[in-house]
Amino acid sequence: MLPNKNIQQLSPYISIPHKIWNLSNKKNILKLDWNEASIPPSPYVIKAINNFLSNGHLNWYPNTKNLVLLDELANYCNQKDSSYIEIFPSSDAAHECILDVFLEKNDKVCIVAPTYDNFRARANDVGIQTVIYPLDENFDLDFNKLEYFIKDKNIKLLYLCNPNNPTGKAYNIEKIKDLIINNDNTIFLIDEAYYEFCNKSVEDIVWQCKNLIITRTFSKAFALASFRIGYVISHYENIKALNKLRNPKNISMLSQVAAFAALKDLAYTKSYVNEVTLAREEFLSFLKHFSIANSGGGGYEMDYYPSMANFILIKIKNVSLFCNFLQERDIFIRSYSHIIKDHCRISIGTREQMKIVAKNMQEFNKVNNH
Amino acid sequence: MLPNKNIQQLSPYISIPHKIWNLSNKKNILKLDWNEASIPPSPYVIKAINNFLSNGHLNWYPNTKNLVLLDELANYCNQKDSSYIEIFPSSDAAHECILDVFLEKNDKVCIVAPTYDNFRARANDVGIQTVIYPLDENFDLDFNKLEYFIKDKNIKLLYLCNPNNPTGKAYNIEKIKDLIINNDNTIFLIDEAYYEFCNKSVEDIVWQCKNLIITRTFSKAFALASFRIGYVISHYENIKALNKLRNPKNISMLSQVAAFAALKDLAYTKSYVNEVTLAREEFLSFLKHFSIANSGGGGYEMDYYPSMANFILIKIKNVSLFCNFLQERDIFIRSYSHIIKDHCRISIGTREQMKIVAKNMQEFNKVNNH
Repeated sequence: MLPNKNIQQLSPYISIPHKIWNLSNKKNILKLDWNEASIPPSPYVIKAINNFLSNGHLNWYPNTKNLVLLDELANYCNQKDSSYIEIFPSSDAAHECILDVFLEKNDKVCIVAPTYDNFRARANDVGIQTVIYPLDENFDLDFNKLEYFIKDKNIKLLYLCNPNNPTGKAYNIEKIKDLIINNDNTIFLIDEAYYEFCNKSVEDIVWQCKNLIITRTFSKAFALASFRIGYVISHYENIKALNKLRNPKNISMLSQVAAFAALKDLAYTKSYVNEVTLAREEFLSFLKHFSIANSGGGGYEMDYYPSMANFILIKIKNVSLFCNFLQERDIFIRSYSHIIKDHCRISIGTREQMKIVAKNMQEFNKVNNH
Repeated sequence: MLPNKNIQQLSPYISIPHKIWNLSNKKNILKLDWNEASIPPSPYVIKAINNFLSNGHLNWYPNTKNLVLLDELANYCNQKDSSYIEIFPSSDAAHECILDVFLEKNDKVCIVAPTYDNFRARANDVGIQTVIYPLDENFDLDFNKLEYFIKDKNIKLLYLCNPNNPTGKAYNIEKIKDLIINNDNTIFLIDEAYYEFCNKSVEDIVWQCKNLIITRTFSKAFALASFRIGYVISHYENIKALNKLRNPKNISMLSQVAAFAALKDLAYTKSYVNEVTLAREEFLSFLKHFSIANSGGGGYEMDYYPSMANFILIKIKNVSLFCNFLQERDIFIRSYSHIIKDHCRISIGTREQMKIVAKNMQEFNKVNNH
């Protein structure tokens, strides 16, 4: 049967590379392409899963209202109580639910871009048009101009990722809050997937701003990407509205168990975030010397951007040559040339892991300098 | 912010009881309310999860195209190859994707009811109208009349659950196939969630009928309800269309691992299905004697329906009294009085478990006979 007109118009589905899953030996792989944590989750997570395997009911549907987990999350997010929180099987799934619940077909959605592309794609998939508000050439955001744009274009929902992916830029948090407070006819969807790495959030105005929805994930700093669990922080009236559509059975029980255990060992996540921050600064310092060295000789020209997240956006002339060179050496990074010409993104792991990346980049330079 | 008009019109969300999750001791609970398996999954599942905990990458996103699992499923479903199969994080999630991909706002969807209500609810939630084609008073289906209805009303998609939930009735499989083959302008969504208990499917006409979509789940016979994993069997062109919208990262890796392990131990599932079949026949026999005894005395009048699935629909005058009585004795069953007056549904577990149910029903009769 033919899909509906809207789906027919979509460009063919771009398959995400999954080569990594077909490798028989994954031991020495550096997976730095999707901004996952580069280390396993807290040992508490493994322990909690083992405990559930022994004493839980794998044959039962998952808990449909896990108050213990919601309370823990409310505490983690500094909310009054769990009525301001809801969990979803990924923040992508939260975005889908937000689109279905809060938007009409003719509403205008604005995306501050370049950014994580899933929200735009899903909006278009379900027939909602999006307009792009472009960042400037340094990926900075002029808030005054954005506010004018929102009003002028009668924007119903604005999607802003902070810190932004793939640029790594964190916007001024007070300016974001002012924008939300001063434009209460627009819904602000603030994607804080990388919150833990910059430690700045708009969570403290949730109680007063019914036009604010924050999404977060356990897939990055908490190292639980395989589990598909994320959450929404928003005014309880919005949480109620989302729950009119949300399937309450939809989060695997082991994912709930894993998330709760991870929240019970925040020291582990904090320590990993510190390690990534150190690794990022070391790697940025390497990139600085590397690009200076390159600009003097015949090596590959390269530029890069400061980052407040666990990845760095790099500009390099022949992106695919660079990505393929690293991939052949078991280092998977992400080409972004389909969205930003000549750019790729490298997730930041531990210092030791990033030294391996640096070593291979020097090798790349040597090979391609001759 | 106000949700969109469509969501505003929805009746308030009916919270699913989750009392069971808040009980501190779940050891002796008989959970017979949601048709889950009443025993743990195959030991292979536990072993496979333990192996992944030791050697897998919990920090990585899940496999986006698990060909090994898809091939195993294609084999299990007697399909030519895995292009006829796609996995989803539950068959509910598959239903949502089918609605979004194949239907336009003004298309007519027909539900053969009473049946599992989630598809109707979701269709209405996203603004698609549904018409009910009612089963007769014995929950039987006149295929000639249904075919006339489909043509007369210009039905774009028909939802048929086989065997049907909550009635337990399996429709004539050849008549279903004829209906699909003879009405190629209508999409037939055949929900085979309980396939394993009746062993009859329309899977053998998938290759020739592009208007057929089958959904199935690992939540029932395979005892993996906590994992949220289901799948679609359909012509590869339909699978391709679904993949234009489907988020390929959306199935927890441990759920994929669990499903694959369960398929590798079909003997375990077969043995459980046999046990349930025996338990169902014993329990039906008990119900027969029980209702005869009751109709003679002053006990509770009761009727019941034959079933080809792992549950039995029961008619009893005071449903909530009956359900509450059992619940106080740690037996959770499902009242259906909101959909079919004076009816409740009891999932069938093992013979031993059903003897406990029978014993408590006799107790109920005694208490309410005085």
